[in-house]
Amino acid sequence: MSSVDLTKIAARDAEDPPAQFREQFQLRDGLIYLDGNSLGALPKASITRMAHAVTGEWGEGLITSWLGAEWVSAPRRVGDKIGALIGAKPGEVIAADSTSINIFKALAAALSLRPDRGVILSESTNFPTDVYMMQGLEAFSGGRIKSVTVAPEAIMEALDETVAALLLTQVHYKSGLVRDMAEITRRAHEMGVLVIWDLSHSAGAIEVDLNAADADFAIGCGYKFLNGGPGAPAYIYVAERHQSAVQPLSGWFGHARPFAFEEEYTPAPGIERFLCGTPQVLGLAALECGVDIFGRADMAEVRRKSLQLSTVFMEMMDELCAEFGFSLISPRDPALRGSQIAYTHPYGYEIMQALKERDVIGDFRAPDVLRFGLTPLYLRFQDIIDAVERLSDICKTKAWDKPHYRERAQVT
Amino acid sequence: MSSVDLTKIAARDAEDPPAQFREQFQLRDGLIYLDGNSLGALPKASITRMAHAVTGEWGEGLITSWLGAEWVSAPRRVGDKIGALIGAKPGEVIAADSTSINIFKALAAALSLRPDRGVILSESTNFPTDVYMMQGLEAFSGGRIKSVTVAPEAIMEALDETVAALLLTQVHYKSGLVRDMAEITRRAHEMGVLVIWDLSHSAGAIEVDLNAADADFAIGCGYKFLNGGPGAPAYIYVAERHQSAVQPLSGWFGHARPFAFEEEYTPAPGIERFLCGTPQVLGLAALECGVDIFGRADMAEVRRKSLQLSTVFMEMMDELCAEFGFSLISPRDPALRGSQIAYTHPYGYEIMQALKERDVIGDFRAPDVLRFGLTPLYLRFQDIIDAVERLSDICKTKAWDKPHYRERAQVT
Repeated sequence: MSSVDLTKIAARDAEDPPAQFREQFQLRDGLIYLDGNSLGALPKASITRMAHAVTGEWGEGLITSWLGAEWVSAPRRVGDKIGALIGAKPGEVIAADSTSINIFKALAAALSLRPDRGVILSESTNFPTDVYMMQGLEAFSGGRIKSVTVAPEAIMEALDETVAALLLTQVHYKSGLVRDMAEITRRAHEMGVLVIWDLSHSAGAIEVDLNAADADFAIGCGYKFLNGGPGAPAYIYVAERHQSAVQPLSGWFGHARPFAFEEEYTPAPGIERFLCGTPQVLGLAALECGVDIFGRADMAEVRRKSLQLSTVFMEMMDELCAEFGFSLISPRDPALRGSQIAYTHPYGYEIMQALKERDVIGDFRAPDVLRFGLTPLYLRFQDIIDAVERLSDICKTKAWDKPHYRERAQVT
Repeated sequence: MSSVDLTKIAARDAEDPPAQFREQFQLRDGLIYLDGNSLGALPKASITRMAHAVTGEWGEGLITSWLGAEWVSAPRRVGDKIGALIGAKPGEVIAADSTSINIFKALAAALSLRPDRGVILSESTNFPTDVYMMQGLEAFSGGRIKSVTVAPEAIMEALDETVAALLLTQVHYKSGLVRDMAEITRRAHEMGVLVIWDLSHSAGAIEVDLNAADADFAIGCGYKFLNGGPGAPAYIYVAERHQSAVQPLSGWFGHARPFAFEEEYTPAPGIERFLCGTPQVLGLAALECGVDIFGRADMAEVRRKSLQLSTVFMEMMDELCAEFGFSLISPRDPALRGSQIAYTHPYGYEIMQALKERDVIGDFRAPDVLRFGLTPLYLRFQDIIDAVERLSDICKTKAWDKPHYRERAQVT
């Protein structure tokens, strides 16, 4: 190899500030985990925290833990901790429900703030659940709401005075392309359009500043870069100025006085009105551990390392795999690149299976995308070197050509 | 005491078939827990299961556990297990989201099946979140949907051809009154009204047979009698004949092919279309342990013991507390009584605090209701004797009269 100095790259692990965080995760020796953008690794703190939540808080405290173990304030407490990572003020984020449900709340709330507009807009290649939730709203609205998707490059020209809300993912789930949140929000606002940012691939991965971007709403996922555990609660951000919006999933935890058991719904004055049913206490406990790790991390350093990891990944792919038919679909410009790298390949699915057999876990997205999540808190530069070398070996030996790979189903 | 023979009652513990289940729960010695209808006790199996879900499935298996640990099928698997308790067929119940969210799905689905009708009906004293979700639907509908609540005794006469759906709780959350599911469903169907049964205080507490009652929809809570843990996932039942209904919370897990990442929403053909976002994997693991205990229980015996417990409770109250101003609001007729007993008392809140100091946990519902959940799987007859004796002592000594009781907040 000429242009890539592996010794020098591997040496970075010794002097890399985020490297200290790796020991806070439970990761099997030998495994190279490049799928933290689908499901983040297990924080060691979550093991003890969950055992305590189950045996101590639930088993011993029983119903008294709603106050005694502060279950009742967990959605707000965890929300505020996530908020600190994404440029929200205290009281602008709450952790609850799933990303999909929070998309529904945000879309409906935005529509309530733009009663004369009926269009909700997104890009056709957005993560499917975002668009599906829009389609569900349209189907339910009896013609009042229209869900529109356009090609990614046509978003700006589709903004007009019929559009109530634009729903965009800041970091694209396949390519990792980063959208310019401040600029898009500014241009949308010029047309009176509210913007809902899906931060599922942003929070914990890149620096996000919702208030600086004048963002209206945001939602995101707890189980990816936030390491909140499988099916973790999601979160929703509502800018303070929009917190009087109507949110139709008006369950008892969104009531101003949930425990007064009143017959009429009176929404809570602040972010709590974006709660619905009883909080997922056990899921929130795990999510809190994942988020707490970021409380000790410098997001600028996390971001810098993320870009170094992806740069090394790309350079090694150029060096070792150029001849094997991969097409990079992630941006080479670091400013446009999230914390993941994706390639298409005709044998993408089979290659990912072959990598798994070599203890490298990434993921595959139909029809032909290999996606590698680069999580700076627990990945080492050496991991990237090893992963690309194994990938190169698979290609050299055409190891993807095994019939049993085709038989497996694919998930998430 | 004349009419109540305590020795004879206490002796029942030795010969009671459900008594064997108590050892499957982690319960502190000395504690008398009469609040399993708010939060069920911790099954011992949940301790090891949760540790494995966290350390083994998440930590070791990581993303591969979606298939490897069968996370992807957990909502259906747990749903079917709950279904077996409530007279549903396999494929009619799925475990997901919160009770509130599932109420929304059921109401919207029912409305889609009755496109010419706009009224959704309930009783004014229903559990608040049920009514709040109806009010949220109305607020969002732009005049198309009308949420109507009437007094409990006026439900039948309010059924007419404007009503799309009737939402009723089978066992009332305060009084424990049991509604006649089959008869009410029959009469509603005569008017073309679909019925949504809230089973939060039924499943695991009384015998339920949704199919025998020709029920249309049902929803319920995982953290009460099912012992699924704090904030456990809820469940939704949709009769097979209604599974083509439109459910507007159309997240990716409700798609016919969630992992094909298609741009258009195509609902799954069966009960899976009532899923929305990514399943709460950790919460489902705990819920499954709670539900599994019932797989070894005979619900007829559970029900028989429940009624024996509540009968003893009432008889002892008549005997020991008649002079202290309690009013029973639960039915004396066993056929009409769920698995809880409630009294009103002007000092209800303070009395419940005094009971807690004496290691008896029940709960208080504003403004003046003392509610005692009687969970046959882990309560003993001796517990009932002890609880009522302590209650009687509190009343005799007016121990409720302490200023600090008033200062505490109340939760769920």
